[in-house]
Parts: sequence; C-alpha cells; structure tokens
Amino acid sequence: MSGQTPATLWAKGLPLDQAIHRFTVGEDPQLDLQLLPFDCMGSAAHARMLTEVGLLPWADGQGLVGALAALFPRCQAGQLLIDPALEDGHTALEAALVEMLGESGKRIHLARSRNDQVVLALRLLQRQAMVDLGALLVDLAASLYRFAGQHADQFLPGFTHLRRAMPSSVGQWAVAYVEALIEELDALPAIWQRLDRCPSGSAAGFGVPLAIDRERSAQLLGFSRVQRATIDVQNSRARHSQALLDWLASVALGLEKLCWDLCLYSGEEFGYFALPDAATTGSSIMPNKRNPDVAELGRARCRELYAMAQSHRQIMSGLPSSYHRDFQLGKGPLLAAINLAAELFDVLRRVVDGLQVRSDRADAAMSDDLYAADRASLLAAAGMPFRDAYRQVAAELAAGDFAADRGAANLHTGARGSLALEVAQRELDQAGEWVQAKASALASLPQQVFSLDGWRSPGAAQHKES
Amino acid sequence: MSGQTPATLWAKGLPLDQAIHRFTVGEDPQLDLQLLPFDCMGSAAHARMLTEVGLLPWADGQGLVGALAALFPRCQAGQLLIDPALEDGHTALEAALVEMLGESGKRIHLARSRNDQVVLALRLLQRQAMVDLGALLVDLAASLYRFAGQHADQFLPGFTHLRRAMPSSVGQWAVAYVEALIEELDALPAIWQRLDRCPSGSAAGFGVPLAIDRERSAQLLGFSRVQRATIDVQNSRARHSQALLDWLASVALGLEKLCWDLCLYSGEEFGYFALPDAATTGSSIMPNKRNPDVAELGRARCRELYAMAQSHRQIMSGLPSSYHRDFQLGKGPLLAAINLAAELFDVLRRVVDGLQVRSDRADAAMSDDLYAADRASLLAAAGMPFRDAYRQVAAELAAGDFAADRGAANLHTGARGSLALEVAQRELDQAGEWVQAKASALASLPQQVFSLDGWRSPGAAQHKES
Amino acid sequence: MSGQTPATLWAKGLPLDQAIHRFTVGEDPQLDLQLLPFDCMGSAAHARMLTEVGLLPWADGQGLVGALAALFPRCQAGQLLIDPALEDGHTALEAALVEMLGESGKRIHLARSRNDQVVLALRLLQRQAMVDLGALLVDLAASLYRFAGQHADQFLPGFTHLRRAMPSSVGQWAVAYVEALIEELDALPAIWQRLDRCPSGSAAGFGVPLAIDRERSAQLLGFSRVQRATIDVQNSRARHSQALLDWLASVALGLEKLCWDLCLYSGEEFGYFALPDAATTGSSIMPNKRNPDVAELGRARCRELYAMAQSHRQIMSGLPSSYHRDFQLGKGPLLAAINLAAELFDVLRRVVDGLQVRSDRADAAMSDDLYAADRASLLAAAGMPFRDAYRQVAAELAAGDFAADRGAANLHTGARGSLALEVAQRELDQAGEWVQAKASALASLPQQVFSLDGWRSPGAAQHKES
Amino acid sequence: MSGQTPATLWAKGLPLDQAIHRFTVGEDPQLDLQLLPFDCMGSAAHARMLTEVGLLPWADGQGLVGALAALFPRCQAGQLLIDPALEDGHTALEAALVEMLGESGKRIHLARSRNDQVVLALRLLQRQAMVDLGALLVDLAASLYRFAGQHADQFLPGFTHLRRAMPSSVGQWAVAYVEALIEELDALPAIWQRLDRCPSGSAAGFGVPLAIDRERSAQLLGFSRVQRATIDVQNSRARHSQALLDWLASVALGLEKLCWDLCLYSGEEFGYFALPDAATTGSSIMPNKRNPDVAELGRARCRELYAMAQSHRQIMSGLPSSYHRDFQLGKGPLLAAINLAAELFDVLRRVVDGLQVRSDRADAAMSDDLYAADRASLLAAAGMPFRDAYRQVAAELAAGDFAADRGAANLHTGARGSLALEVAQRELDQAGEWVQAKASALASLPQQVFSLDGWRSPGAAQHKES
Repeated sequence: MSGQTPATLWAKGLPLDQAIHRFTVGEDPQLDLQLLPFDCMGSAAHARMLTEVGLLPWADGQGLVGALAALFPRCQAGQLLIDPALEDGHTALEAALVEMLGESGKRIHLARSRNDQVVLALRLLQRQAMVDLGALLVDLAASLYRFAGQHADQFLPGFTHLRRAMPSSVGQWAVAYVEALIEELDALPAIWQRLDRCPSGSAAGFGVPLAIDRERSAQLLGFSRVQRATIDVQNSRARHSQALLDWLASVALGLEKLCWDLCLYSGEEFGYFALPDAATTGSSIMPNKRNPDVAELGRARCRELYAMAQSHRQIMSGLPSSYHRDFQLGKGPLLAAINLAAELFDVLRRVVDGLQVRSDRADAAMSDDLYAADRASLLAAAGMPFRDAYRQVAAELAAGDFAADRGAANLHTGARGSLALEVAQRELDQAGEWVQAKASALASLPQQVFSLDGWRSPGAAQHKES
Repeated sequence: MSGQTPATLWAKGLPLDQAIHRFTVGEDPQLDLQLLPFDCMGSAAHARMLTEVGLLPWADGQGLVGALAALFPRCQAGQLLIDPALEDGHTALEAALVEMLGESGKRIHLARSRNDQVVLALRLLQRQAMVDLGALLVDLAASLYRFAGQHADQFLPGFTHLRRAMPSSVGQWAVAYVEALIEELDALPAIWQRLDRCPSGSAAGFGVPLAIDRERSAQLLGFSRVQRATIDVQNSRARHSQALLDWLASVALGLEKLCWDLCLYSGEEFGYFALPDAATTGSSIMPNKRNPDVAELGRARCRELYAMAQSHRQIMSGLPSSYHRDFQLGKGPLLAAINLAAELFDVLRRVVDGLQVRSDRADAAMSDDLYAADRASLLAAAGMPFRDAYRQVAAELAAGDFAADRGAANLHTGARGSLALEVAQRELDQAGEWVQAKASALASLPQQVFSLDGWRSPGAAQHKES
Repeated sequence: MSGQTPATLWAKGLPLDQAIHRFTVGEDPQLDLQLLPFDCMGSAAHARMLTEVGLLPWADGQGLVGALAALFPRCQAGQLLIDPALEDGHTALEAALVEMLGESGKRIHLARSRNDQVVLALRLLQRQAMVDLGALLVDLAASLYRFAGQHADQFLPGFTHLRRAMPSSVGQWAVAYVEALIEELDALPAIWQRLDRCPSGSAAGFGVPLAIDRERSAQLLGFSRVQRATIDVQNSRARHSQALLDWLASVALGLEKLCWDLCLYSGEEFGYFALPDAATTGSSIMPNKRNPDVAELGRARCRELYAMAQSHRQIMSGLPSSYHRDFQLGKGPLLAAINLAAELFDVLRRVVDGLQVRSDRADAAMSDDLYAADRASLLAAAGMPFRDAYRQVAAELAAGDFAADRGAANLHTGARGSLALEVAQRELDQAGEWVQAKASALASLPQQVFSLDGWRSPGAAQHKES
Repeated sequence: MSGQTPATLWAKGLPLDQAIHRFTVGEDPQLDLQLLPFDCMGSAAHARMLTEVGLLPWADGQGLVGALAALFPRCQAGQLLIDPALEDGHTALEAALVEMLGESGKRIHLARSRNDQVVLALRLLQRQAMVDLGALLVDLAASLYRFAGQHADQFLPGFTHLRRAMPSSVGQWAVAYVEALIEELDALPAIWQRLDRCPSGSAAGFGVPLAIDRERSAQLLGFSRVQRATIDVQNSRARHSQALLDWLASVALGLEKLCWDLCLYSGEEFGYFALPDAATTGSSIMPNKRNPDVAELGRARCRELYAMAQSHRQIMSGLPSSYHRDFQLGKGPLLAAINLAAELFDVLRRVVDGLQVRSDRADAAMSDDLYAADRASLLAAAGMPFRDAYRQVAAELAAGDFAADRGAANLHTGARGSLALEVAQRELDQAGEWVQAKASALASLPQQVFSLDGWRSPGAAQHKES
C-alpha cells in the first residue's frame, strides 16, 4: 500500500481522466505482451483475406503482411512494448503498423473489431499452450513410467485412509500417475475441437456488411471450420478459456496427490522415498532441517490452478449475451495458469527424475498385518463366505496367531504382479504423437500467414490501379 | 436450528457412538437411493464374473444374480429404503441379499471392497446421466433452433456493453445458443471416454490375490476397457465426477446468458420478448407485477451449477493418493448437480417453446445510429482507411446528418442474412445420434447382467458339487 | 436419474404450469421448515405493531397474535408441513392463519411483502444460530483447554513443513486451537452488530404509504435499531448471510488443521495420539484396519464449509440492486452450513474428550536433532552472530558430535514452559458470557411477542367499533 | 507461452538447481517489495527488544536500528530491489544489513525465524491496508451521501425482479449504498481486533530458549497484546489474511450492485442517469457508441475480489497445523486484492462525483401502475383485508380504470419521505473517526521504532563491554 503504484494513484489526486484511464487499462500492457505474437498472425491472415477478396488494395495488403512479418519476431521476443497510453496490445500493434506504413496501416481494422481480434489472438495462444503443455506432460508421464519400471518389484505398503492397508508396490503407485496423465492427454483433442473454429470476421459480434471470406481466414490460420454464429464468438470466449483451465485443474487433481505423496513418503515418519537434494531446502533457524519445499509448492500450485479455474469462471460469468468490458479481466487467470502449469510440469519431471527409493524403509514397513485381507480373500476363494473369512482373520489378528502368506500371486490386470506397463507405454506414445502432430501443424503457420513468396491476390486485378 | 434434526443430536446428549454414527452416515441413506440401481447392476456383473472364473459356486452365483435382478426394479422405484443403522446403500444392498439368500448372500463381497464398489456405481450412474442430460439438451437446442428459424428475419438491435450497437436479428441471437449447445454435446464423447474403463476388481485400491477376470466384468457392464491401475481407480474418483460437473458448468455458462437475456428482453425497458404466462409469477404485495421468476431462477441455478462444480473440487481435493473417507462428501454436489441440471434443461425448453417476439418493440428499437458502423465499413470498403471512415461517420452523427443505409447485405457466413441454419441442423442431428446410440447401449445392460437365460458358467464343472 | 423425483418431472410430460411450479418451488417446502418458527415470531411482532398504531382492528390483532402463538410450538416441532402447492413457508403460514381465523387471517400481510418477511425470518434464525453455534464452540474450546492442561508437560516434536523441527509439547499444540477458537468467538459480536437491525416494514424494498412504527417492531424482536434504508434490506440479504458463512469458514480453517493433525498423529507412522474407539471404523475388506473416519469426515466437512461460503456468494452475487428471485437459492447453503457446523462442533468435542496421548511414542520421537536450533540460539545469545552459530551446529550435526541440551528453559510468553493457560481460561469465560447473555435475551423473545397478558393497544380506542 | 519467461525455463534445459530455485522463488521478488517497509519496522522493533533484554550488544542494536531506519524510506520508495538469488524480501533485507554493518548485521536473525518474520510483516501491512482502504471507503460513502441529498426528492421507479414495482426516489436508492458502506466500516474494528496481537518471538512456531520480551515487541509496534500461542501464529496466517479478504468481498457485494445499477440506469433503455464523460469510452468499430466501461470493469473487479478471497482460502487451506511452504502462495491474492480494492474505491468515488440524473427520463418512467401497491395498502388500512384490496386493485388495473394516488405520504423511517440522512451522516462521521484515529496511531510508529533519540537500553550496563 505504501509507496507502490496503486498508492500514488489516489494519493496524488490524479485528474479524473487519468485515474480512469489507468483503471481501464489495468494489467493489459503486461498481459498483452504474451498475446502479441498471436495477434500478429491473426492480423496477417486477416489482411491476406481482405486483399484476396478485393477489400484491400494489393499494395496495402502486401505492405501490411510484410510489416506484420517483421513485427512477429519482435513480439515473440517481448520487444514490442505496450505504452499504457495505447491501452492494450491490439492498439499498440495498429500503432506500430501506422508508424511503419503510414496511411495504409490504418486499413488493418477494416471488417473487424477488437472484440473478435482478441478472441482470435486468445484462441491461437490457447492452441499453442495446449501443444506446449501437452508436450511437458508427456515428458512427466514418461519419467513416471521409467520410475515405475525401475521399481516395479519393490514392495510398498498400500494405504487407505492414510493407514497401512494392503501389500502394494512402488510400481503400482507410480503407474497410477502414468495412466492418469494419459487420460488427461487423451482429453486434449476434445478441447482442441472446441477451439478449432475461426472467430475472425464476426467483428463486434454481428458481422459486417462486406463480402469477406471467413473460410479463407480459417484456412490460413489452420482452423478446420469457421465459428459461424457471430454472437457465439463473444459468448464462447469464457467457455473456451474455461475448458483449458478446467483441464489444467483436472491435471492438478492428480499432481496434487503426487506432491502430497512425495511430501509424506520422504518425511522421517514414512521414509520410503528420498527427494533429490536440489529439491529440498534448509531452514533459516534450524540447522537440522531438510524441507520438501518443491513438493509443498507443487501441491500449493495445484490448488492455485483450481483457484484460477474458479476465478476465471467467477469473473467471466454473471452476464447477458454478447461482449462486455468485464471480459478483459479474464485474461489474467488464463495466462497465469498456463504459465504456472508449464513451470510446474517441468519441475515435477525433474523431481521425479531424481527421486530415489529407500528400499530398507519400504521393506521394513511390510508388516504381517498388511496381508490380512489377502488371507481373508484366499479363505473365501476356498469356499468360506467372505464375511466369515473376514471375522476369522480378525480373530487370528486379535489372538496374535496370524501368519502372513506373502507368496500369493496378484496377477489380474493391474495387480502388482501384472502392471501392463507395455500397454501404458503404447498409449503414452499415441498421446505423444497427437501432441507432436499438432505442434508441427502450428509450427508451419507463421510461414503460411507471413510469407509473400508466390502470393498473388485473386482480386489483384480489380485493385491494380492502387 | 430449533427443533430440527441436527439440534436434537447434541441437545439430547446422545452417547458418543450414536452421535458419531450419525456423523459418519451423513446424507448417505438419502443420496444412495439414487445409486442403488447402479449398484445392483455392478454387483450382478461382479457375481457373474466370480462364478464364471470359479470363485463362486454356480448355485450361489445364480442365486445372487437372480436376487439382484429382483431388487433392481425395487431400487429404481426408490423402494429399497436404507436404514441409517446400515450406513449406506452398499451395506443395505448386501443386507437385502443376505435376507433373501441367507449365507450365500454374504459371498457377494468376495474380491471387492466398498472402495471399488462405490466407484463402479458412480461411474454407471454418470454414464446414464450423460445420456439423459444429453437428450434433454438436444431437445432444448432443437427448440432454440425452431425459434431461430421462425424469427430469422426479425430485426433486433445487437448489443455490446449492454448498449445498442449494430443491426442484428432474433435469428442471429438464437442460433448463437444453438451452436453453443452443439459444442457442448460434441464434448460429451470425451467425457464418456474418460469414464469408459471398468474399475471393478481393484478392491480397496491394490487388487486381490485371486484370479479374477476384470475384462469380463468390463464387458458385462458395457465398458470397452478395464481401468488397469488399481490405485488410479481411487485417484480418479474425484477427476471423473469433476469432468461431468465441469461440463455442466460449461453448459451453464451459456444458459445463464440465455436466462439473463430473457429477463432483460422481456422487461418494460427492452420489451422485445414476451415470456409465456406460465413462466411469470405475481407479487404478494404489488397487483401490477408480472415477474420473470423462471428466468431468474434459471440464471441462479446456473450459478448453482458453477458452485457445485467448485464445491466438489474443494471437497475432493487436498489429499494424498488412494482412498480417504472424505470422498463420501463428494456424492452430494455430484448428484445434486445432475438432478438440478435435468430439471433446468427441461424447464428452459418449455420456456423457449412458449417464447414470443414483440415485433413492434423490436422494430421500433432499430434506430438509425445502429447503422453507423455499417456505413463506416462501406466507406472503408470503397477505399477510405477505416479509421478515417470512422471519424467521418462520427462527425455525421454529431452533426445530425447521418443517414442510415438499411439495405446493405450481410452475407458472409454467420451474418444475419446467412445463418447457415441447415448446417446447424445437421450437426445437431449428429450429436443427437450419438446420444441415442449410447442410450440404446445402456438400455440393454440390465438384460445383459441380470438375465439367467442361457447363462452357463465356464467353471460350472468344477463347482457342480455345490 | 432413474426413478427419482427429477426423472419423473420431464419424463411424464407434465403440463407447463406444473413443471414450472415445481421448478420455482424448488427445495423451499423442506428448507422453510427451519424458518417457520422465526416467521411466527416476526409475524406476531408485525401484527402487534400494526394493531398498536391502529392499522389493524384490536380483535384482529389479538386473534393473529394468539394464532401465531399456537402455531409457534408446532413449527418448532416441524409439524406445520408445507404443501408444495403453497410454494413456501410464508404462504403456508398465512394459509394456516386464514384457516384458523377466517377473513382476519388475511390481514397479516398489510404493510409487508414476502421480500421483507423472509429477510426478517432469516435474520432471526441467524441470530439464534450464532448463539447455538457459539455455545457449541465454547464447549469444544473448553475440551481442548482441558486437554492442553492435562498434557501441558508432555513433550512432542514440533513440525514445520511436516518435518520434525524443534521441541514442543502437547500443551503447546492444544492451546493453539483454544486461542484460535477464542478469536473466533470474539468475532461474533461484530456479526451480531451487522444483523442487529430490524428489516420489518421495508416491504418490497421501498416502504409503504402507511404510518407504521418500525421502531416498535424492532423493539419487540430484540433489535437495537431499525434497518433504515429500505432498499438495503434487500441488498443486505446476501451480505448478512455471507458474514455468518464466512465466519463458519474461518472457524473451519482451524478445525480442518485439527482434524488433519488427528488423522496423522493417530496413524502408524506418527503414533502420538490414540483416537477413542468410537471415533474409528473398520474396513469392509481388511480385518486389520482401524480407520480415523471421523477425523477424515471432519476435515472434509470443513472443506464443505468453505464450499458453502463460496456457493452462497456465487449464487447471491452478480445482480443489480433490490430483490431478485435468485435470492431464493441462497437459503440452501446457509441452512446446510449452520446444520453441519453444529454437528461438526459437537462431534469434534466428543472426539477431543476421548483423545489419549501415547507418551511412549511421543517421548521416543524427541531425537537430539530437534534441539539443534535451540543450541544455535543459545550460542548466539552468548555472543556469536546467529548465522555463524547456525553453521557451527550444522557442522556438529554433520560430524555426528552434536549433543542436545534438553534443559534450556522456554519461558517467554507462549513458550512451552509458559503457556498462560489461565489467561486463555479467562478469555474463554468472557466469550462464553457473551454467548450466554445473548442466548438469554433470545430465549425471552417468544414470551415478548406472543403473550397477550396485559397487552392493551394504544390504538384500541379508535378501532373498538370493529 | 512463446518467448516469455516461463518458456525459456524449460526450453533451455536449465540445470536442476536453477530451475528449482526459480520455482521456489516464484513471484516473491516482486510481491515482497510491498512488504519490505513493514519488515523494516518489524525488524527494528525486534532489534530494540533484543538489545533491551540484553541479548544483543548495545552497539549492535543501535547499529541495526539505525541501518533499518535508513533502509525504511528506500523500501517505501521501492528502491531496495530483491535479487532473485536472494529468494525473498526477508533475505534481501538481512543482506542489506550485512552489507551496511558487517558482522553485526547477521545478529538480526537471533530469536526469530522467517516464519514469524513474514507473519509480522504481513500483519503490519494489513493494518495499514485497513486504514487506507477504510479512508477511501469513507470518501466513497461521503460522495454517495452528497448525491443522495442532492436528489432526495427526485422520483425514480423502484424495481423488483428488474421490473418496475413501486414509487421510489434517487435519494432512497443512494442512501442504501451509504448505509451498506457504513456497516462495512463498522465491521473494521473486529478485524483489527483479530490482528491486534503481536506474533513476534514465536520463531518457527515453537518459541525460543531465550528470555525475550514479547510484550515489549508488541508495545513498540502498536499491538495491544501478544499472540501467545506460538503455533497459532502460523495457524492464524491464513485466517487473518482471509478476514481482510472476506471483508473486501463483502464490500464488493455492495459495490457490484452499484456498478450494475450504473450500467443499466445509464443505458438507452433505462436512461435515468448520465455517467461522466470521462467514465465512458468509445468503440473501435462503432462511431455511435459510448460504453460504460468503468462501471463494467468495476463490476468485474468486484467479482475478482470474490475470486481472490476464494483463491486465498483454496491455496492456504487443506493442511495440518504449523508452517508449510504452501503459505508463500497466499501472498499473491492478498496483495492483489488490497491494491485493486484501493483503486476501485477511488475510481468509483470519482464516478459518483460526476454522476448526473436525467430527471426527464426518471419522471417519465413514473407510470400509474407503480402506485398499485400503494393503493392496495391504503384500501387495507381503511379496513379491507389486504388480500381483498390486492384483488380489487388488480381488477382496476385489468379494466383500465386504475387511478394512481400520487399524494400518499411515505413517512416511516427509511421511506422516501423520511430518509434520516442526518443519522447516516452522524454514523459515517463516527466510522471516519475510528479510521482517522487508527491512521494517526500507525503514522507514529516509524518514529517509535526507528528513533535513536533518548533510547537507552535497560540492559546497556551488562553489554557495555562490547
């Protein structure tokens, strides 16, 4: 409160216009840096389409596409700064075009509105995020898969209610996370499908009275369809961002468990795992401590992902149809969640890669009573009703004459003797292939929208006078 | 607080055991009524599988399946009440089997735990819910589609920032909701795919030391795969319920807008729509009022769906891997959300079916200034940079000599003259076919799991002595 | 979904009116049972005031108060059922009055609306809930206080990051919860102050054109002030319920930690506490298990309290000023949270009353390294810069020649040798006295509003002709 | 995702240590800038206390206090940058002291831990925030009060269900917000009371084996009490921040309604208000538009405040007692909410100061039917049962022969003829006085903790040898 930016705002008695300008600009100059490269691509495709249908003179179109091609790497490098006076990235981009091209820079805004421009940029960004996050998740799953394979035969108590319950194994523990991540990766194509419709040309939400070619814009930007309903372009803005955020929150539901397990299992009391040294920190006051900060922060970041999904929905809901300025504030949680998830996935992979099993502690924990349920099952399989077998074993345990049979085979699908790792490997490969294919497709887009080589407008003839 | 159930709990000094029993039982006796039919099916499939692999004597297996077949319609009708002394529906079902079959009723619990039993019942319920909710949503979308078609040519102001913005139409407004609902219907198969793995046989979360056939259980219950990782069966419980709740919340993001629009557009100030009489109510004090209660409650129910999605995640997260008793409380928001969504979808369809357009009000609202952006676009298309055209029109408006050109064609895809309703119809039909196919598949399951006709256990030989 | 109430709604093709009636009625017939006793009190006070200012004939006023006095105990006992055809409790109450009194029963609705009637009933209920919940919390704090005193000298490792950190004690652990609960109890008066304004007479939100005496209504119902701004009566409905829910969520932030500690500390790995037998349950498959279900469910109920606070805000926000039908759905989370919190507070007290310390396990865990920070502090107090002392002790630990000094006194306020339990006791007593005083005041209200003894209307003269 | 910071993290294959260091540092270097001035004050008080009890040599104590006094204005001005290599502000501060003082700079960390250091700094910051936010809210309430007074007699339709309901006035509308804000201001002292306990000296959560004087630290920092229970210092961290966030969310519940009303009432359809020009913006495509962006963003910022309160609880809950690294992530939503609320309160005051009433539109909306409930009330007051009066008026309305009586007096407390503005003024003054008194007390603290004038350590004698 003291000394920081917001304090000065009201303390210094800014004139109304300036105070309100700052309020309406908000965090956009910072957040939009991440959107700018995608806005370049979207704008270039728009300019190409306008030129091809004859709504832009050929020279202007060529100039705009060329200028955007030059701006694209600068935007990727974060070098096109957004002056708060210009409000947001979209205006900054148009201003840069005018500076480079003069009058013809102003022509970029024909047949569009900032309303569809921002939806397009967000959608392109989200597609890229899905691919990037997917690749990181494939890597994390692969690390867990390797860990499962390396420790497939290491016994570990299985817990229910955080109480020692039944015999399990490190492999059985790890493969549960692998398969959860595969399920999440398999959920990506459906989100892609939601987003795979080009919003361009819907303008403020009601279209334009011009013969634009929305299908051409879609094609240039790698969308398989146009988002036909122009009002739904605005209505869907919250829905599409929410789909990605809900997916991240779903991934986090699994990773929070992983982090919690790492915290507990690496502590003095459980002691089955040893975290890599680099993933623990010391205390400012206690020389004896090694703390699992990375696992704790990982756990908290997962809860932050839940919070961001909820924040986004809270901010973006509660409104009638069509565009409202409220939408501006949804960018914050979306971009923050994407960025933190990327870091989280990467860091957890590093932790798993360095994770070690303390076999002595794990073996020592395999006490006889863990085999009680197994014995009851075997008695039942031999003919005794299960409830009676349960009571007999309970009596044996109480009397202290229970003897564990540690040799029972667990061989049905998913049992610790039958983890089906090769099937998981195959499924993970397939998920990785989808991610890779989409990544390749996206990587080819800049060439497609920015290149002037061989570009000849079908409508060039009618504008050749310009 | 006074006089109701909870008050008596502590007021009367219940003995510890009873107070705690009530606390642990919670809402289960009520909630599990909805789960019981699905538990019958899951249990019958389990008994069949156990019998076929020789873990249950043939006579016992036949008896269990027959008894469950008899219980199934009673459970569907809500007639198998759950005595709170029995804690939950799973125990009540086993108690009913013991009452019907004596000793052999106890055999049902071989090779399973309540942990996998409840996951299975929930998953079967969610599959059915997806089909039921999907069908209701297809109907709602069809009503909106009809409405769009009937009023495709009726002008309506398009709003941005809740301010009159550009010319639009009732058709353009309605088709936005149709296409949003098609997108939601198209998202169902991915959720189905998440759920399409049979958890049965994972027991407490670590499998059993018996040669069960998990693939057979999956097949009997119409799952295309086994959920291999036994620990993930428990880890996935939150994730799978959340997927359905997030989907409902996504649907609600659209329906809340629909309800808000209905509230506003049917009010004195906007006045474009007339709600069906049955969807408005009077005031207890003001004889002059007709209130849009149904649209208001629909709007609030949408926010309740957001809240339930968030509640479920809040309750089910924050835990290490495997089963915890906390999971019990996740059933509440899941079942409540399914039930309220079903009612909401149905009621909104009824409202849309009775919705009328007040053409006089809509036409009267089409003032000249709505055409300002169109004029700027047309000037720009004729060669003036858009920003200059914008300024010229603003000047005309300020000077009062702006003349609207109401004849401009809006013919690109999604424009009000080109709504592509036939494409939406085709997509909606396809979505409906998926729902119908899944509904048929689910409808055949009771016959498949309960029928004794022609059922001959492959393992019958080894048990024929029973 | 199958066979339950909601299914039949749409399945059977109800006529529009009935389907919509059910939708608008919602859960009111069930929820309003809890509101009815408070509505009786509020209505009796309204009738008295109307009679006293001469707006109701004396005989009618006397009849209404007498009838409400007779209905009050029936409502407390849950015996005045609410026919769904009557929509809600307010209508059911008016119907009961008309049934008892004929024409004059209809006079109760003069100068009020259901809008202020429900706010009044909710406010009276919330005041009672604050007193009831406060009393339960005083009892829980007292149990924790006794536990702290009994085990004040029992050593226990202090944990940070869930790692063994420094020497602590059971007393130090328990008194932290006592003082947190005292803080929560001390926060109650401020919520009371928010609610301590009588909404009666604001009618639909704009007052009435009659000379009612709002101060008299306030006085009869034990409010110290009138809520003057009539529109704020409706605007404050969400705010006031939210204040109670936020308080419950704040209490839950502490109790969740208590439950988590109980789960962990009573498990095999930590083992410092033993839960009372009645607070643990067995497994359906594992004869060896004793699970801490009560502590787990307590933990989950705390998260449910967070969820309810969030649900209430989600449902009740997002709206312009004044009354909206959306408000109806806020009753659900409010009443549910009050009821579950009451049960939770009571059950946790029972668990704490039966909690035992396993001294052997606690003592055994007091390993030398817990004293490392103490040693560094003592070295630093003797003149070595703390950072250097820290490094020296770390070196001693690494070399294996660290010797713990277990005799250091910890005597500053709050240290384990100086818990200041008597101060906590005094503060808890004061908090309890506030609760008791408010409880007494509320207990006298029924006599005040219902008694006809000695009631003589000042305005009786002008109405004696009736 | 492309080109921004997070991308480079994993893309460039940072070594494990650096990647994890970045992950654990998170946003601290930015966020802690706001905490640093408060950390200076807390550290100076700690050094004074240590010196006075003889745990720090006099020269060291004097040096530390002097250095912190010099750092304080630099921290206020945001000039003490936090090198990410130093992790957080606390370490940066200690590093600055060592740089300034050499060896004796290291002595500051005696008898404390970063665990209590950060709680102290946050608590000091929150106290200041309460005062700053309170003052801004007093100003906003005062503006609304002036507006209410200026337009007390201007008729305005009163709305329920967003339908025209009954006669009301601009004064009645505005005073509802004034009184809501007074209620919020009156809730501040209870939050202050929660925070008014000094955490200093609790160290990692279990105290220290040294004779520190926690009461002295409390006195120096203007706390009236010590927070005795050392473990509760950590347990209360979430609770105390949550109390402030819940308060902001409660304020937002009112301001969201204000913003919604401003959006609606300033639109073409309602038209009762005119927003100041500076609070509206134009469209990028529509020359005809003036959009209420400030009111829209204000509304969305209110929802963001709800979201931040929820995010904080989500992130900070779900954990056993004592310190966890997860706590680090709670700082984000706390600081963000404080900053945005300050800007929001200020900007809304500016909007209200420029708000104008369009009397012509408001008067024109006062149609006869608004008086229907009044007529029913007057008939009922004259002896007809209200329900019968209601039906008679409804019949008159239907028959078109209803005549409004616009002369009825509305004179009970809070009615539009009796707004009791002078009482609101008095209450607002009192609330402002509390804020002002606390502001003054806080303003004197820097002098109290930093001044060396006349400071003579009681323990100076025993350390004079150093």
